[in-house]
Amino acid sequence: MSQVSIVGAYNTKFGAFIDVKDMISFKKKTDTRSFYDLIVEAGRGAIADSGLEAKDIDAVWIGTCSPGRFVGQEHIGPLAVAIDPALRFKPMTRTEAACASSSVAIYDAVYAIESGRYRNVLVIGVEKMTLLDTPAMTAALATCSFVPEEAARGATFPALFAELAKAYIARYGYSEAEIRNQFAHVAALCYRNAAKNPLAHVQNGPQTAEAILGMPDTGKGANVMVAAPLRLHDCSLVTDGAAAVVLTSTANARKTREKVVEIAGIGHAVDYLPLSKRDDKHRLAAGKHAVESAYAEAKITVADLDLAEVHDCFTINQLLCTEALGLADDGRAGHDYVAGRFGPDDIVPINLSGGLKAKGHPVGATGASMHALVYKQLVGEPIGLAPSNKAPTVGVTFNVGGSGVTNCVTVLRRVK
Amino acid sequence: MSQVSIVGAYNTKFGAFIDVKDMISFKKKTDTRSFYDLIVEAGRGAIADSGLEAKDIDAVWIGTCSPGRFVGQEHIGPLAVAIDPALRFKPMTRTEAACASSSVAIYDAVYAIESGRYRNVLVIGVEKMTLLDTPAMTAALATCSFVPEEAARGATFPALFAELAKAYIARYGYSEAEIRNQFAHVAALCYRNAAKNPLAHVQNGPQTAEAILGMPDTGKGANVMVAAPLRLHDCSLVTDGAAAVVLTSTANARKTREKVVEIAGIGHAVDYLPLSKRDDKHRLAAGKHAVESAYAEAKITVADLDLAEVHDCFTINQLLCTEALGLADDGRAGHDYVAGRFGPDDIVPINLSGGLKAKGHPVGATGASMHALVYKQLVGEPIGLAPSNKAPTVGVTFNVGGSGVTNCVTVLRRVK
Repeated sequence: MSQVSIVGAYNTKFGAFIDVKDMISFKKKTDTRSFYDLIVEAGRGAIADSGLEAKDIDAVWIGTCSPGRFVGQEHIGPLAVAIDPALRFKPMTRTEAACASSSVAIYDAVYAIESGRYRNVLVIGVEKMTLLDTPAMTAALATCSFVPEEAARGATFPALFAELAKAYIARYGYSEAEIRNQFAHVAALCYRNAAKNPLAHVQNGPQTAEAILGMPDTGKGANVMVAAPLRLHDCSLVTDGAAAVVLTSTANARKTREKVVEIAGIGHAVDYLPLSKRDDKHRLAAGKHAVESAYAEAKITVADLDLAEVHDCFTINQLLCTEALGLADDGRAGHDYVAGRFGPDDIVPINLSGGLKAKGHPVGATGASMHALVYKQLVGEPIGLAPSNKAPTVGVTFNVGGSGVTNCVTVLRRVK
Repeated sequence: MSQVSIVGAYNTKFGAFIDVKDMISFKKKTDTRSFYDLIVEAGRGAIADSGLEAKDIDAVWIGTCSPGRFVGQEHIGPLAVAIDPALRFKPMTRTEAACASSSVAIYDAVYAIESGRYRNVLVIGVEKMTLLDTPAMTAALATCSFVPEEAARGATFPALFAELAKAYIARYGYSEAEIRNQFAHVAALCYRNAAKNPLAHVQNGPQTAEAILGMPDTGKGANVMVAAPLRLHDCSLVTDGAAAVVLTSTANARKTREKVVEIAGIGHAVDYLPLSKRDDKHRLAAGKHAVESAYAEAKITVADLDLAEVHDCFTINQLLCTEALGLADDGRAGHDYVAGRFGPDDIVPINLSGGLKAKGHPVGATGASMHALVYKQLVGEPIGLAPSNKAPTVGVTFNVGGSGVTNCVTVLRRVK
């Protein structure tokens, strides 16, 4: 068990905070909620939620993936001083691990508190993606692949996850129709959940697998092929947003805070960056290591879980995460989703938030958002849907960077 | 005192690892030592120097400033798996704090070891800058300023440090000739030291202040004005390079390692990113906080120092660091350099490596390089010049990110 707990959290609205009317009229784009705004909103929100004041915060970590390319800003840590002048002269560090950039920020903060050097630490995850158009954003994201062998030869993340999907299909012998049906059920579940999450980017997505499967291949409202077998509705969103959590030692939290969720266990395992180095692309090999570490530290098994937020950057990855967590047998997660598992009334609801598919995926914010929303679930203040059957006490987050490369798994448990 | 020590270090050759002949002949540039190569060389070198094996390394942190813009690669942590397959499935995290990116990586690793979670941690600092031409590189570096108010309005780092220089000159009433003379003495000392450092980027720089002061303002061999009052020889270099250290708990190091240098104290203090927010630009206000923290933790005063490596991204900043460390009175550091202080025979030699001015400044590598080279000094294996008068036992590194914004100060002390 870590010695650290979450005592406050905040998640901004996720969306595309660019004034699109102005883009159509060829006026200057209006950045209605900037990268800088998002950091300040999330930081202030989490501090307020914790009941602490800015002066009580001893250090800040900010996780963000590629602001140098997305918004033209590096040297991110010091932007946190704008949250409150009381933060001037405090230590601030930015971490990066592709789409897991803010989970690793949380882990660095956990170590810092466990070292005894800091009492209260603010961790923010943030990304502003919509200043770029989609081709430019896709190219910027592709820098998180192994560039000399992947992006530099034209690979994009949809293409890399299509490789994982093809390996999965080959391994388990699914037909095109079968896998398409499985993926559609995963996506529809996320869209249904997001419809109840006021912070989600997409709240009016197709609500059933049938609706997705009935879409044409081309033309208006098409579910176009992006990188076979992955179609538009298998891909997560290009989103702006931020989330933040306040961490403190569990010993301190028990004495002084009202709503405490301990970081019961963490797992952080990294695989080869080049996909060509991996002969087991049908599963998250490093992800399984991370899950084992997190469960072992938390002294739990999968049977103890009450809910999960997993990294559905593409529908295939939601299947892989579900299996790596032990919530489905290898190769069988899709069957379970088709059978209606993992909804709000399941024993373990997955992606009650709507997931990356529908809540949205501001890449550097995603890890912090998972932690923030599971915190809110466990302290009885769910944003959007809650599990139907019982008040949850144990949740898990599974945040992935790159094509299954960086794997961050956190077990969270309500303390009080 | 931290509970962590350095037990091995490595510094690659610093230089411009692009085949310039090919650039002149309009052939494809040849990247003779790539970003990827530098990570692997530094990582393997530090592990070998520590006497450990790759399988003994429990986690990796990589500090790097802007590889997304410099080399088109993000998701940096997992590149460390290429050091050795034994590192597969270990946790790897990239940190960024502009030119202090690898000092903060070291601090995160210190916390991680102090948390008791990891025994041996590898920390690498790296940057590959010369794939960009100088204007593009200057623009990329400018993303480390507060972009909306600084880079987006045309500011560059020479211009921002010129603001610090002008504030310093105004505060202390120096004439143009006086400050130019002070700066020339700082630069000449770094060039002289670098001439003896086989890893330095520039080993044949002007060896005396007179040589610098005698240069013309224009034409061949000119010391051109870059951003008044800063001239070419006041600016550090655009350099490729990497450095790495292996850290372990001091308790473990005392039992098992031969050459041990403890991280006696650290200070990490961040100022407002926008220069316009600071009314004390004649000094490193946050730097003084970092120095106080580091000295207090190490239980030393400035009188205990035997050598220092400081962040001379521009000559003005070497003066500011010297003063913040307490090695010179405020406003008087330049007089001390003119009087011949801080050379190899001084009581506290500064930048025996040649500093950023002449060793070179691969921005993300600089913090790790400072730690690596001071480690080598303290264990009696100096790379280049050593202090003339005594075997050093206490050294300090002072690494700065941005225009005096991120300040990282580490006191290092030989244990055995």
